Amino acid sequence: MTSPLRAATPEEQFQEVTRGAVDLHVKSEFMEKLKRSYETETPLVIKAGFDPTAPDLHLGHTVLLFRLKRFQDFGHKVSFLIGDFTAMIGDPTGKSATRPPLSREQVVANAETYKAQVFKILDPEKTAVCFNSEWYSKMSAEGLIRLAARYPVARMLERDDFKKRFKEGRSISIHEFLYPLLQGYDSVMMKADVELGGKDQLFNLLVGRELMKEEGLAPQIVLTNPILEGLDAKLVDGEITGAKMSKSLGNYVGIAESADQIFGKLMSITDDLMWRYYDLLSAKSSAEIAALKAGVADGSVHPRAAKAAFAREIAARFHSAEAAEAAAAEFDRVHAQRALPTEIETREIHLPEGKSEMGLLSVMAAGGLSASNSEARRLVTQGAVSLNGSKVSNPAMNLSPGEYLIQAGKRKFLKIHLT
Amino acid sequence: MTSPLRAATPEEQFQEVTRGAVDLHVKSEFMEKLKRSYETETPLVIKAGFDPTAPDLHLGHTVLLFRLKRFQDFGHKVSFLIGDFTAMIGDPTGKSATRPPLSREQVVANAETYKAQVFKILDPEKTAVCFNSEWYSKMSAEGLIRLAARYPVARMLERDDFKKRFKEGRSISIHEFLYPLLQGYDSVMMKADVELGGKDQLFNLLVGRELMKEEGLAPQIVLTNPILEGLDAKLVDGEITGAKMSKSLGNYVGIAESADQIFGKLMSITDDLMWRYYDLLSAKSSAEIAALKAGVADGSVHPRAAKAAFAREIAARFHSAEAAEAAAAEFDRVHAQRALPTEIETREIHLPEGKSEMGLLSVMAAGGLSASNSEARRLVTQGAVSLNGSKVSNPAMNLSPGEYLIQAGKRKFLKIHLT
Repeated sequence: MTSPLRAATPEEQFQEVTRGAVDLHVKSEFMEKLKRSYETETPLVIKAGFDPTAPDLHLGHTVLLFRLKRFQDFGHKVSFLIGDFTAMIGDPTGKSATRPPLSREQVVANAETYKAQVFKILDPEKTAVCFNSEWYSKMSAEGLIRLAARYPVARMLERDDFKKRFKEGRSISIHEFLYPLLQGYDSVMMKADVELGGKDQLFNLLVGRELMKEEGLAPQIVLTNPILEGLDAKLVDGEITGAKMSKSLGNYVGIAESADQIFGKLMSITDDLMWRYYDLLSAKSSAEIAALKAGVADGSVHPRAAKAAFAREIAARFHSAEAAEAAAAEFDRVHAQRALPTEIETREIHLPEGKSEMGLLSVMAAGGLSASNSEARRLVTQGAVSLNGSKVSNPAMNLSPGEYLIQAGKRKFLKIHLT
Repeated sequence: MTSPLRAATPEEQFQEVTRGAVDLHVKSEFMEKLKRSYETETPLVIKAGFDPTAPDLHLGHTVLLFRLKRFQDFGHKVSFLIGDFTAMIGDPTGKSATRPPLSREQVVANAETYKAQVFKILDPEKTAVCFNSEWYSKMSAEGLIRLAARYPVARMLERDDFKKRFKEGRSISIHEFLYPLLQGYDSVMMKADVELGGKDQLFNLLVGRELMKEEGLAPQIVLTNPILEGLDAKLVDGEITGAKMSKSLGNYVGIAESADQIFGKLMSITDDLMWRYYDLLSAKSSAEIAALKAGVADGSVHPRAAKAAFAREIAARFHSAEAAEAAAAEFDRVHAQRALPTEIETREIHLPEGKSEMGLLSVMAAGGLSASNSEARRLVTQGAVSLNGSKVSNPAMNLSPGEYLIQAGKRKFLKIHLT
């Protein structure tokens, strides 16, 4: 069996692992690393940091994981960094409510929760997990001073958020200047070949590149991910536009949700957003995705089928193929039953002269839902008729004046205004 | 015997120890501390830092020591901080040639040299010496992060030199922001009541005040010294004006210099500078100095006598009272001998007809240095005549044509142009 490291050319690997990425520093160096890895059959070390304060992941967090997965598929090794050292310090100023200090127990527990979640996507065999307290708990104040000496204040103030806060006169504590250095130094300790992160992490990732250069190491390649838009994002002026996926906005898919929930939520997105999600989250190759896209474009594939395939893939990832299939089937059943045509005809029907009620079967026939009262009776006894969403079992049912939604069979709907 | 802590009132102590100071933060708190010390007979802890890279002191460095001495005279305790921790790190960027890292041996050797020098002024019984490596060598990176969290970037950038460098686009390394915090934290560890420093240290000293407050300690009083002007400073428009005392400018008095050198150099300063030096360097009380000043003003004291008294005091400080007296006597002797009137008369004297030389005695008589050749002979045999600065012993000496400076007795000088 060929090593997975030889299964795809460096160019093919490049194509897949950079799919949908935002920043790449530096392409030529990355190609060199991929070529050397290919020639020597030596896996690259792909670093990704994890902040152990937020162990409950949604699909937005998995953009990173799916990219790591693509690296693993080519035989490379993922090295997960749990930033427990700084997490345990938290924000010593106490100003940031989002960075409460964690105890060692919390960090370990969060890391375990995290691992349980990421191994639904990643291959544990090709994944190492390390904790930066391993080196920082041994670091002295002197070591940190020497590290701090390697970076200028002015450069740190170029980081977008620091620049903004400084300009606006909002306080930045000096320790905040140390954290990017620690994050960068992690890369030195891990001898990372590539580091992945969100595009908001670009600055910090580049600090790692610089520190590695200064240490005489080959600088890591920096590859950043877009922030995933939420389920409610839409194409506006040719661009996917919408708030990022987040729990507080409710536009998310939690990876701990049921297969039914995952499938159903993903079926609700627009076709445009579907292609974006395909790029960032699917294990399908770029070629497969392109073929699917072409199929939808020439009408040979229904967009709904493409979306269902995606929703099944993601549901299967976090549960099982069977669970995903069951979710799809259940979705179809419920969806078909519940799906009301967007335009339902309304008919006004008058009660027979001197009567205060009218039989359901007569109403159905009068409204055209059945050719006759006897066909209407047959439909009711077959269980194919529902009134205001509830199945009707009694063919002798009478209706008083009012509004009713009657469904006969799968596709026939009628709104009745009985007067 | 009364405790020295009760020998002067808090107000009197305040008057003496703040003499000639630049900044005082905060007067009311300082008075409180002095009062409590007086009432409870508890000495205050006076902190002063010493950078162990520069062990060879001149009088400029001793402004601090003389102020500490005044505190000791009132019974307070001096706590000297040797900043060996940061000295051993130096400037890790290697950019600053003035902060090369020192080895532990160098630091210890410098500290010993320093102690030998400061104990010429201070009372070793009331002086403690501590090394900040004692606490910082045990500090972890985490401890330093927590310390760094307590100070904002913007405030640090208010320090004059940082502000200037930042504005001019010159690099500041992040570790430089940590050093003032370490210096401030020293005060916390030492529980300093008062910290002294040069006026350029004000910012750092105030950081110490803040950190102490945050730790729930009574904040230290900050008292800064002016930078001592060099020997060549003068009164210009009512202010002492001139470069600071420094070795490289040559306008200094090294405290390791001989009593003769110290005395002689101090006798060269202007009267105005003398009063400045009195204020900053003399052990005399403010009242004594005021009396001396009044004496000079009403003509009862010759300014030269006041200057000699000061020069003797300083020479005695670094040597002994006897050495200072000897230096004063030698200075008088040499000065009297060597002091040439600013205007010396020049006389042209012609050789006797047909002669190529002329006898010294005849020249002296011809020039009016003696009433006759025989008086000239007596002066020569008494050893009272010098030619071009060298004593003449041979009365039969002949002079060839040329220029000569002849001195007869203490006060008679004549330039001779013999043709």
